[in-house]
Amino acid sequence: MATQAEFEHPRKAFGWAARDTSGVLSPFNFSRRETRENDVAFKVLYCGVCHSDIHMLKNEWGFSLYPLVPGHEIIGIVTEVGSKVNKFKVGDKVGVGCMVGSCRKNTCRNCNDALENYCPQMILTYGVKDTDGTITYGGYSDLMVADENFVVRIPQGFPLDAAAPLLCAGITVYSPLRYYGLDKPGLHVGVVGLGGLGHMAVKFAKAFGVKVTVISTSPEKKDEAIQLLGADHFLISRDHDQMQAATGSFDGIIDTVSAFHPLLPLVSLLKCHGKLVMVGAPEKPLELPVFPLIMGRKTVAGSTIGGMKETQEMIDFAAKHNVKPEIEVIPIDYINTALERLLKADVKYRFVIDIGNTLKPST
Amino acid sequence: MATQAEFEHPRKAFGWAARDTSGVLSPFNFSRRETRENDVAFKVLYCGVCHSDIHMLKNEWGFSLYPLVPGHEIIGIVTEVGSKVNKFKVGDKVGVGCMVGSCRKNTCRNCNDALENYCPQMILTYGVKDTDGTITYGGYSDLMVADENFVVRIPQGFPLDAAAPLLCAGITVYSPLRYYGLDKPGLHVGVVGLGGLGHMAVKFAKAFGVKVTVISTSPEKKDEAIQLLGADHFLISRDHDQMQAATGSFDGIIDTVSAFHPLLPLVSLLKCHGKLVMVGAPEKPLELPVFPLIMGRKTVAGSTIGGMKETQEMIDFAAKHNVKPEIEVIPIDYINTALERLLKADVKYRFVIDIGNTLKPST
Repeated sequence: MATQAEFEHPRKAFGWAARDTSGVLSPFNFSRRETRENDVAFKVLYCGVCHSDIHMLKNEWGFSLYPLVPGHEIIGIVTEVGSKVNKFKVGDKVGVGCMVGSCRKNTCRNCNDALENYCPQMILTYGVKDTDGTITYGGYSDLMVADENFVVRIPQGFPLDAAAPLLCAGITVYSPLRYYGLDKPGLHVGVVGLGGLGHMAVKFAKAFGVKVTVISTSPEKKDEAIQLLGADHFLISRDHDQMQAATGSFDGIIDTVSAFHPLLPLVSLLKCHGKLVMVGAPEKPLELPVFPLIMGRKTVAGSTIGGMKETQEMIDFAAKHNVKPEIEVIPIDYINTALERLLKADVKYRFVIDIGNTLKPST
Repeated sequence: MATQAEFEHPRKAFGWAARDTSGVLSPFNFSRRETRENDVAFKVLYCGVCHSDIHMLKNEWGFSLYPLVPGHEIIGIVTEVGSKVNKFKVGDKVGVGCMVGSCRKNTCRNCNDALENYCPQMILTYGVKDTDGTITYGGYSDLMVADENFVVRIPQGFPLDAAAPLLCAGITVYSPLRYYGLDKPGLHVGVVGLGGLGHMAVKFAKAFGVKVTVISTSPEKKDEAIQLLGADHFLISRDHDQMQAATGSFDGIIDTVSAFHPLLPLVSLLKCHGKLVMVGAPEKPLELPVFPLIMGRKTVAGSTIGGMKETQEMIDFAAKHNVKPEIEVIPIDYINTALERLLKADVKYRFVIDIGNTLKPST
């Protein structure tokens, strides 16, 4: 197969890229920058497949740059470090998540608060312009070079394939559980949508000691939600009687659904002062019922990934409490099929590409 | 004029009531209960006119009971106290706001947390069934009898007419400013809608040391917002350039508008982690843009009045910091005209009925 090439940087790299909004991936020769003084270079071993990869591949958010090498749940082993790097050394197991840069200025409130993910100049791991004008490329590729401030350490003994989904799916649910105070033993938290994000929300919430109920349209997911993921209860959102009986019983709900869906039933499930946290992003506005928000002092809020300090904390917490994503490991040449299955929610619960063993340069 | 009568209780009372969903008020002879051991009885001197009086008069929320005597910003002087009352004595200046009861059980989380306003068994001051099966009647009347736990003290020297609007308009904005952490000097808070609630939000926020911007469709309100109410800035929501320039500059916004309106422009005005707090209740759902909520970890939330402890705290704060509602004092026989003007937002900023001097029994 002919591979379009790109040689802006001196270091040769290889991955799979989409060339246009068809989103179809194929082999791609490209380049990475030399290891700068604050950089960590690493050989990629695994990369998770996130639903937002599909949005970016098809330019559904409108800012994708092509050729587009996706992947922002990247795990690997350090091969080189810059002269000023002191957090990592060759041979370390590391990860890069959704971002590879932010302004890091003293004047940036978010960067100062270790909330680089909310910095207006945050740089996504792939598909956007980097500060040097080149395009960022993600982890569906053989090697990564990134500023050490955007690299995390994978704890000793944590399986490297299962670590990948922590870097986006994991932090995306961990951070709001913490920020919105839904991490206290004794609380009752609901999880809507049992995909990559949802299944991690169940696992982290359980690890916090929270009572967890999965709220789903699909009764057939019940057994696995309880037996495999550890949820305490399962609520079928289309069952009026069940929903009625559960009215006002949740301290919080993590809503991972990115399709259009009604909010009133979820707001009704909240106790007074309860919080509905959106982490999936429907394209169209949702209908917000204001009266129940007011009468119960309820909150509807959002959250996206987490800062680098919190991401490291999340990984360390996962290692300590044995919180492990459920994954299906695939070879890179299965990726287009995997994306089709992901669109149909036909995965339990996250695809992880075995980059180290299956990505072979074609030229 | 013939007045319909009601004699369920032994104590004669007199006020103005609507008999049906026309909402038209006319004189009404009715009754109040004897002073129970925990009760405070008081002669009503002033009563504020709230926009929700109109909703209740016309049964727009669907649970009004008639005859309906409105009024939940009630100020008066104690005439009698029950044998177990120890907080009040005859001659004290007191007030009753939006509620006259709640379950007050040990098992009620809200009552235990001094959040009687969120107790599922909270009893509104007028238009609903009381625990004894009789209808509650509000402050458009000559006397009140209420459990001392739902009575507040008006600080010495605070003008009694101006005190009335604190009991609903005041606490409705004070409580969310506090609960959502928008009461810290140096923060920037927006106020949408410059009616009874909005003008109090400006005054309380300024008293907290917050920078306040009024956000309004009406340029002609600017001078008064700044010069009379003390706002720092005025933003015309229909001016695209002004709104664009203010993007991402608010820590929080108190939205008092109860008409249907777009939320996206308000959400866009918030900084990351900012909070849009709804205290007006549009009947129809509003359109909630989820993407900006997520990308900025923003919150849309609600709040209604406040608990009794916080209501007393709010009044004491108002007295200490000289926070006084702007009022137009009216006689009771002007009330139907006043309600028409209120519907057109033709009041600066709260009508207060001079009950003590103008309500005269017709029989």
